[in-house]
Amino acid sequence: MDPSANHRGVALVVGAGDATGSAIGARFAREGYVACLTRRSADKLEPAVERIRAAGGQAFGYGSDARKEDDVVALIDLIEKERGPIEVMVFNIGANVPSSILEETGRKYMKIWEMAAFSAFLNAREAARRMVVRGRGTILFTGATAGIRGSANFAAFAGAKHSLRALAQSMARELGPRGIHVAHIVVDGAIDTEFIRSNFPERYALKEQGGILNPEHIAENYWYLHTQPRDAWTFEMDLRPYMETW
Amino acid sequence: MDPSANHRGVALVVGAGDATGSAIGARFAREGYVACLTRRSADKLEPAVERIRAAGGQAFGYGSDARKEDDVVALIDLIEKERGPIEVMVFNIGANVPSSILEETGRKYMKIWEMAAFSAFLNAREAARRMVVRGRGTILFTGATAGIRGSANFAAFAGAKHSLRALAQSMARELGPRGIHVAHIVVDGAIDTEFIRSNFPERYALKEQGGILNPEHIAENYWYLHTQPRDAWTFEMDLRPYMETW
Amino acid sequence: MDPSANHRGVALVVGAGDATGSAIGARFAREGYVACLTRRSADKLEPAVERIRAAGGQAFGYGSDARKEDDVVALIDLIEKERGPIEVMVFNIGANVPSSILEETGRKYMKIWEMAAFSAFLNAREAARRMVVRGRGTILFTGATAGIRGSANFAAFAGAKHSLRALAQSMARELGPRGIHVAHIVVDGAIDTEFIRSNFPERYALKEQGGILNPEHIAENYWYLHTQPRDAWTFEMDLRPYMETW
Amino acid sequence: MDPSANHRGVALVVGAGDATGSAIGARFAREGYVACLTRRSADKLEPAVERIRAAGGQAFGYGSDARKEDDVVALIDLIEKERGPIEVMVFNIGANVPSSILEETGRKYMKIWEMAAFSAFLNAREAARRMVVRGRGTILFTGATAGIRGSANFAAFAGAKHSLRALAQSMARELGPRGIHVAHIVVDGAIDTEFIRSNFPERYALKEQGGILNPEHIAENYWYLHTQPRDAWTFEMDLRPYMETW
Repeated sequence: MDPSANHRGVALVVGAGDATGSAIGARFAREGYVACLTRRSADKLEPAVERIRAAGGQAFGYGSDARKEDDVVALIDLIEKERGPIEVMVFNIGANVPSSILEETGRKYMKIWEMAAFSAFLNAREAARRMVVRGRGTILFTGATAGIRGSANFAAFAGAKHSLRALAQSMARELGPRGIHVAHIVVDGAIDTEFIRSNFPERYALKEQGGILNPEHIAENYWYLHTQPRDAWTFEMDLRPYMETW
Repeated sequence: MDPSANHRGVALVVGAGDATGSAIGARFAREGYVACLTRRSADKLEPAVERIRAAGGQAFGYGSDARKEDDVVALIDLIEKERGPIEVMVFNIGANVPSSILEETGRKYMKIWEMAAFSAFLNAREAARRMVVRGRGTILFTGATAGIRGSANFAAFAGAKHSLRALAQSMARELGPRGIHVAHIVVDGAIDTEFIRSNFPERYALKEQGGILNPEHIAENYWYLHTQPRDAWTFEMDLRPYMETW
Repeated sequence: MDPSANHRGVALVVGAGDATGSAIGARFAREGYVACLTRRSADKLEPAVERIRAAGGQAFGYGSDARKEDDVVALIDLIEKERGPIEVMVFNIGANVPSSILEETGRKYMKIWEMAAFSAFLNAREAARRMVVRGRGTILFTGATAGIRGSANFAAFAGAKHSLRALAQSMARELGPRGIHVAHIVVDGAIDTEFIRSNFPERYALKEQGGILNPEHIAENYWYLHTQPRDAWTFEMDLRPYMETW
Repeated sequence: MDPSANHRGVALVVGAGDATGSAIGARFAREGYVACLTRRSADKLEPAVERIRAAGGQAFGYGSDARKEDDVVALIDLIEKERGPIEVMVFNIGANVPSSILEETGRKYMKIWEMAAFSAFLNAREAARRMVVRGRGTILFTGATAGIRGSANFAAFAGAKHSLRALAQSMARELGPRGIHVAHIVVDGAIDTEFIRSNFPERYALKEQGGILNPEHIAENYWYLHTQPRDAWTFEMDLRPYMETW
């Protein structure tokens, strides 16, 4: 049976453990893509997968360590074989852990980069290898303001996010002419998540006024970028609440 | 009679003389906005106005010198009175005339800035004054790569476009919290216009492959920005053909 | 008599009315350049001219409106004839006057640009025209953080300073290969001036700790840039107090 | 015996294997600093050490793997004990190895980052820990244009150099107020090295005209940055030949 018979292709979301990743998966599923969600532990993907299915979409969860080259290669092979061609790859792993530079450890500094930049490289390269053969595809990276400027106490996170942006820009320049749309979305502001609700209640209280980002609204922009005709592609766009100071 | 009874408000396009401006006007008209198009000479707006009306939209052309403060104030007063509240203001005047810095005249250097930056300030300020009272509105600026980097033989154009981007960013920071969405679109590449067809035929020949920007596709992004919910606004996005070198 | 017989050429400082401009003039005079200082009113240049002469340097003051093309052309002709070849041109006119975008007038918005950007173009073009004939020369622009990012209530100033930076970058790219060193210095922070002393006493109190910029230290960097060998030229450098937040 | 009795402190150059690193060491040695040079293999440092000594300076070579946290900590402890306080730390390891993103391996992508970014973090953190106790010190990073923009076939190098710039900027913001001067030098262009002579002879032929960077001229800028008084520190400056296209 042709695995892509009943859908428009795969939308792979790497790092779908949070509200944003699962909203992006759901957005593409709503349009007929099969959402393949990944994170370290497949169990934790169940709620997101169930939500998509309950809404009539197709979704599958995959546990995988996005930092391990062999795992990434195997997973993308498997998805292409089991589910169909990856038409969209979204990289959405963050790792925002602050520290004074004086107290940062080598282990943590490297881990943050491996999670937020190295695994982006591995997954994007593997997806791109399949896409160039077909002459089409979309690769989207969730960026941050830390990808554009470094700040006190955020050397590790800024280093990883700068690296990610360089990857996105280098890939856009190399692969655009080959028909692959690569874009970098700078999400700037608190997102409506359990983490913000618990840890930043004052911030969370701005939700009613539109002061924190709704994951579904973020997802809408990912979908929008995917639909752009190739004569007018966006490489970079920022997203922030109207009341955000920047 | 209430001038805004039968539409969703005014979409004012300042500098609607080219393909992009008229496509933007048409895009908003299609959604129920009344397109008010301006350029120096009202006569030349007739084709664009007719096209919008033929498609069932509402459109009006206004001849006006966007560089004259009194004219701008009077025009925006008139439009608000005759047509209804300006919900969207698009500034779309360009002035890309190259010259060696050694041969540039004061008159031309200033004129390029007046056209592409000073008139943006006048029109945006006037629109913003009305919008802040209502606590809503969208102001969109057509930018260029020259707004981000200066190049040999483009000092005047780069100066004007940098100025424009500074205006957009300053306004976004000041007016965002007051409910006005200000955005800057970096259009990078040749657009499908008569000018490109006549002057750059080799470039124009890339049209079939998607190598030059379709004005309707550009317009789609302006519409999209206007629809973003305020918890996830974009300040800046770029648009370029997939095969563009950048 | 050869006007350049007893010096190394002219260092022209346009906008030498403040502490920074006169310090720059003095720095070059100390190295054997004849400092030609300009501002609107020649009278006010007397103290700076006297200080340079008292230290054994050569200096002349010229009253001139840097925004008037004819005046600029005439002045630079006069200086080249009376004093010798302009080896260095420093543009140092600022115009940092904040205003809400809603209250900014066309007159003031334009005047700020004319002072801080248009007059830079006029003076730099005239200096460059002489320099390219000789295949050497240095053109230095005093920039600001507002040349890199726009802020609420600083649309006019940011617009002018962005324009200035675009001018500098365009000229550097065009004239570098012709032997003219063009650079842009981003001065970020309060400078030790009478203005800061009177208006921002708390800021001024940081002087002893090095919290405000010493004009002589700024001037040192202008001199340094002028001395760079042409295989290793700087286009842009920033200057700020160690304790500045940025 | 006090190890710092007869010099002004240590200038540690991490990655002194190339012409630039050894020129920087020599420049500081000439001013009375003891140059401590490091690279993987100490043997290869001998010529640079000898050259400095022959010129009357003090220099020592240390073989060390800059990517290993324990080695870095031990080396910096040893240098502080044996040679005296590290007043200046220069990070100068590059890793410019191009590759199509489609053919880049995980191993190489990571190694480039470890060499050009991770080892910068380790060495800069260790140096900074000593410097903050003394309330003074200079940390200089050799950057590249790839730290500012990504390019086709340079994803790995751009990723590492962006990461490095983020580190520099984050450290400057955190440590500036504590008296540590952190700066990032963007070296843009071919440098006069054996590598360029052998591999890019046409480029090398521009040497006589000043078309390639002289390592001693680069080094002069590092020294200059170290001498800036703290009320006027530079975070970032670029260096390129006058005839370079950029």
